[in-house]
Amino acid sequence: MVPMNLMKNRKAGYILTGQWAKKAFAEAKIYGEAVELASSADKTFTYIPDCSDLPITEDMDYVYICENNTIYGTKYHQLPDTKGKILVSDQSSCFLSEPVDVTKYGIIYAGVQKNVGPAGTVIVIIREDLISDDVLPGTPTMLKYKTHADNDSLYNTPPCYGIYICGKVFKWLLKTGGLEKRKEINEAKAKILYDFLDQSKLFKGTVEKDSRSMMNVPFVTGDKELDAKFIEEAKAAGFENLKGHRTVGGMRASIYNAMPTEGVEKLVAFMKKFEEENAR
Amino acid sequence: MVPMNLMKNRKAGYILTGQWAKKAFAEAKIYGEAVELASSADKTFTYIPDCSDLPITEDMDYVYICENNTIYGTKYHQLPDTKGKILVSDQSSCFLSEPVDVTKYGIIYAGVQKNVGPAGTVIVIIREDLISDDVLPGTPTMLKYKTHADNDSLYNTPPCYGIYICGKVFKWLLKTGGLEKRKEINEAKAKILYDFLDQSKLFKGTVEKDSRSMMNVPFVTGDKELDAKFIEEAKAAGFENLKGHRTVGGMRASIYNAMPTEGVEKLVAFMKKFEEENAR
Repeated sequence: MVPMNLMKNRKAGYILTGQWAKKAFAEAKIYGEAVELASSADKTFTYIPDCSDLPITEDMDYVYICENNTIYGTKYHQLPDTKGKILVSDQSSCFLSEPVDVTKYGIIYAGVQKNVGPAGTVIVIIREDLISDDVLPGTPTMLKYKTHADNDSLYNTPPCYGIYICGKVFKWLLKTGGLEKRKEINEAKAKILYDFLDQSKLFKGTVEKDSRSMMNVPFVTGDKELDAKFIEEAKAAGFENLKGHRTVGGMRASIYNAMPTEGVEKLVAFMKKFEEENAR
Repeated sequence: MVPMNLMKNRKAGYILTGQWAKKAFAEAKIYGEAVELASSADKTFTYIPDCSDLPITEDMDYVYICENNTIYGTKYHQLPDTKGKILVSDQSSCFLSEPVDVTKYGIIYAGVQKNVGPAGTVIVIIREDLISDDVLPGTPTMLKYKTHADNDSLYNTPPCYGIYICGKVFKWLLKTGGLEKRKEINEAKAKILYDFLDQSKLFKGTVEKDSRSMMNVPFVTGDKELDAKFIEEAKAAGFENLKGHRTVGGMRASIYNAMPTEGVEKLVAFMKKFEEENAR
């Protein structure tokens, strides 16, 4: 949808930091020249590349990032210098985890299924001047941002139940101190787990410190059998979904807005116990 | 999505029976020559045109129909003779209301929001030989049927809640006698309302008898003020959503699978009372 709406010069820059960036990059190639501006593929996407001086050219229509990478547990702590070009950000897995200065972006989009509501709804925040009928030839009506903007998102029958639940969550966020407060809570929550990982003799975070996500925390023991044992015992103790994504293995704790601080405290207590029992 | 996947010769036939057929027709024109094979626009879409000898040509990739027209209350009681061409049917508003011989179709698609589950999920039944990588240039990966078929509908994060509810409804349908029994119930249910309309001195069905839908029953008094009075009094008596679509006016009773027979009986009793009170 992004290339179909924005790729007027048929050229755009992509920063490759994981699966979704790679998928977006491949998709953009259908419509024009997609240029790899930077990548962290060399180290299995365990860091966010330096984006202070990217090879952005004048003819590029936009620069794409995936701001939080669920599978690899990385997050941009500083937005790329896009040299004046439109910044397009997939915020699916960090949306509403902290305040965001929307003026720095051309488009923010996010599937709601991480921090907001049930899978099946996507929220788009788009700069008004980018809403236009000037799209690539062959763009389906439903994939024009303008269609949705002009029709108050009611061109099609919208996913009402999902939107209803999102509304409930927005109200809950406002009632509990808004995104400023949410950031505080999320930072403190993630710190509990990262602090433990940084001193642990058994477990190790896989992401470089300045690229760490507040939402997804991948870690390993360094021993695949021990990883499997941990996941099994954790599951028996009531900790669900700690298995890392099938493409990277290891463990991953997803600690989205809905995960209370006590959940992370309990996980760390369990990890400490496991570490003692499996000391070498 | 249909033209992008099927319009190899860039030509297809469309039968225009309402809003969605018109929208699909306009959309197909983005990709090639969309030919109007028949239309009931001359009488505000109050009937299904004769489709026994359509001007279908050898180079057409498929023939499109919208099988039940929600707004106008029409339904195909006989499928068009497509002269061997692929039949594509939008069954959104009649899906699972009765048994269907899927072998007669190339593609059946249906938004689930009428008879199956919450808005935001679409079900596609497609002939296996139509699932192919040979799509129009510029087709997004997400809009290829093959992407979804190859990935068991898990290429993207699917609308889990909607799918879960659909599963519940499938089980309910099976437990209550399947689609054969559902057809019986729906026919009897619609007959109560149509029989009343056919003898009423005040109310009149707007659709030709051989084109009537079992799901959507539009009717009028012939007097806009009386229509408005009816809708208001009906609403006060607990009958919701009886107002016809904003594009046609009048009244419309939508009596999908979820509407019990008693609901229709109560509506007819209310209509009789209203007729007596407003006799001229």
